Amino acid sequence: MSTADLNTPIAQRIAASLARQGMMVHLDAKLLRVEKGEVEVALPFGDKVTQQQGGFHGGAIGALADIAGGYAGLTVLPEGMEIVTAEYKINFLSGHQEGELRAVGKVVKGGKRIVVTTVEVFHIDVQGKQSMCAVMQQTLVPVPQNY
Amino acid sequence: MSTADLNTPIAQRIAASLARQGMMVHLDAKLLRVEKGEVEVALPFGDKVTQQQGGFHGGAIGALADIAGGYAGLTVLPEGMEIVTAEYKINFLSGHQEGELRAVGKVVKGGKRIVVTTVEVFHIDVQGKQSMCAVMQQTLVPVPQNY
Amino acid sequence: MSTADLNTPIAQRIAASLARQGMMVHLDAKLLRVEKGEVEVALPFGDKVTQQQGGFHGGAIGALADIAGGYAGLTVLPEGMEIVTAEYKINFLSGHQEGELRAVGKVVKGGKRIVVTTVEVFHIDVQGKQSMCAVMQQTLVPVPQNY
Amino acid sequence: MSTADLNTPIAQRIAASLARQGMMVHLDAKLLRVEKGEVEVALPFGDKVTQQQGGFHGGAIGALADIAGGYAGLTVLPEGMEIVTAEYKINFLSGHQEGELRAVGKVVKGGKRIVVTTVEVFHIDVQGKQSMCAVMQQTLVPVPQNY
Repeated sequence: MSTADLNTPIAQRIAASLARQGMMVHLDAKLLRVEKGEVEVALPFGDKVTQQQGGFHGGAIGALADIAGGYAGLTVLPEGMEIVTAEYKINFLSGHQEGELRAVGKVVKGGKRIVVTTVEVFHIDVQGKQSMCAVMQQTLVPVPQNY
Repeated sequence: MSTADLNTPIAQRIAASLARQGMMVHLDAKLLRVEKGEVEVALPFGDKVTQQQGGFHGGAIGALADIAGGYAGLTVLPEGMEIVTAEYKINFLSGHQEGELRAVGKVVKGGKRIVVTTVEVFHIDVQGKQSMCAVMQQTLVPVPQNY
Repeated sequence: MSTADLNTPIAQRIAASLARQGMMVHLDAKLLRVEKGEVEVALPFGDKVTQQQGGFHGGAIGALADIAGGYAGLTVLPEGMEIVTAEYKINFLSGHQEGELRAVGKVVKGGKRIVVTTVEVFHIDVQGKQSMCAVMQQTLVPVPQNY
Repeated sequence: MSTADLNTPIAQRIAASLARQGMMVHLDAKLLRVEKGEVEVALPFGDKVTQQQGGFHGGAIGALADIAGGYAGLTVLPEGMEIVTAEYKINFLSGHQEGELRAVGKVVKGGKRIVVTTVEVFHIDVQGKQSMCAVMQQTLVPVPQNY
């Protein structure tokens, strides 16, 4: 990924939206990549994202996957539209500590009433080894932007 | 709810587990009620749980619902067993700001290999008015406790 | 349930729609009850609905639950609107042979863009004993009727 | 696909299981391809699989996707084990008439307690044109074979 990728209008719009998400700012989520129909975001490990066994919390994994899919959906909408998550379903595949999570959201179907995405969440350990962490299937609804 | 409700062994075990969840401690989640097959937890509004429009983030709603269902599942397990979330599906029904969220998880089926729960998430506004916020359906897997 | 319940305009509209569903006619699905926001349908056991172990096939359970939820959604729409299933998630709780299935669909949220339902599927054995068989959470989209 | 693909022991076991499924036999489902971790099945259009608008019924699409995923899961199990569907979630992407459906199930994670699959369902029209019809995410549970 070159820095240039995040200089497109849609990438800047997504970066601005992410900067408005108190929760994701708080968890240090980062926007990595924006293409038409595909967005990648990352979340570092830390005390703010753990569950009772010390690994990444399912809530953090779900939140990261949700924005990866939601922003992927945003890339296929016309101007002036915003997107909201109607629902998602997530399967947790394995637990992980340390390192970071990366979620890649992809649009499966972009429609006027409904946008469907799938999201894969990977864990990258401190040595850089990547493994599957979770998969999500998500339904988004385009709505007129109101802010 | 009387304070006594949280003095049972299972309630204390759940409280101790919740206190180990860095993410939920960080978000100020509170255990409200523990009965056999049913658990209620709460999450206050604040900067740490917002999305881009200033309402509760779907990730926070999902995380709260996940622990309500997971802890409800824990109440029906034999001693020495722990529970992990295999997957969940959540529908977001309406957006809310301020006030707090309350999630009530209920066991629909407790089995040896799989525990199924449903969770309802309500928003309580600052005047105390309650409205539906989200519904979840969740699959849990009992595993031997390892900590 | 009295016969009168199925003589309302909405019940007759649903009965007419069900009679147009080749698959459900073929499987002998029956409309049992129609109220505002709630619909009950039934499916008898037989060779056409079995899986490899001789019990009700998950596909038959899913199809029955899908129409219970979809028709429940139809009861809360304005005139001239039809409803389509965007997605559903179903948990199978226990296997059953003989007797019949009954699915009760309920609207959790009726909105302009999205209708959300939950569906419970029960098995009624030949002695009349009832047990939980499956639970579904479903997202529907209102669309203009085109037939 | 060569005929030989369906002559392996695992393909023959799956074909025998499918032949025991009254519902799928009735709907003329066919086994097309079996590889380790991946299975493809097909379903022809006809009166037995239609919904009220004359297209493939969601229940038929769901049933086909369910067995594609379930049999894919079976290919990664040890001898003597059978698999049951704990739950699935399916998004319907577009409606189709005539032609046939093909569902391709793939194992995302094969574990001792849980197997997770994703399934893509395609529609092939009478001219051979292929389009996406549905996507499923499914949780399976390995159990000892009892028949």
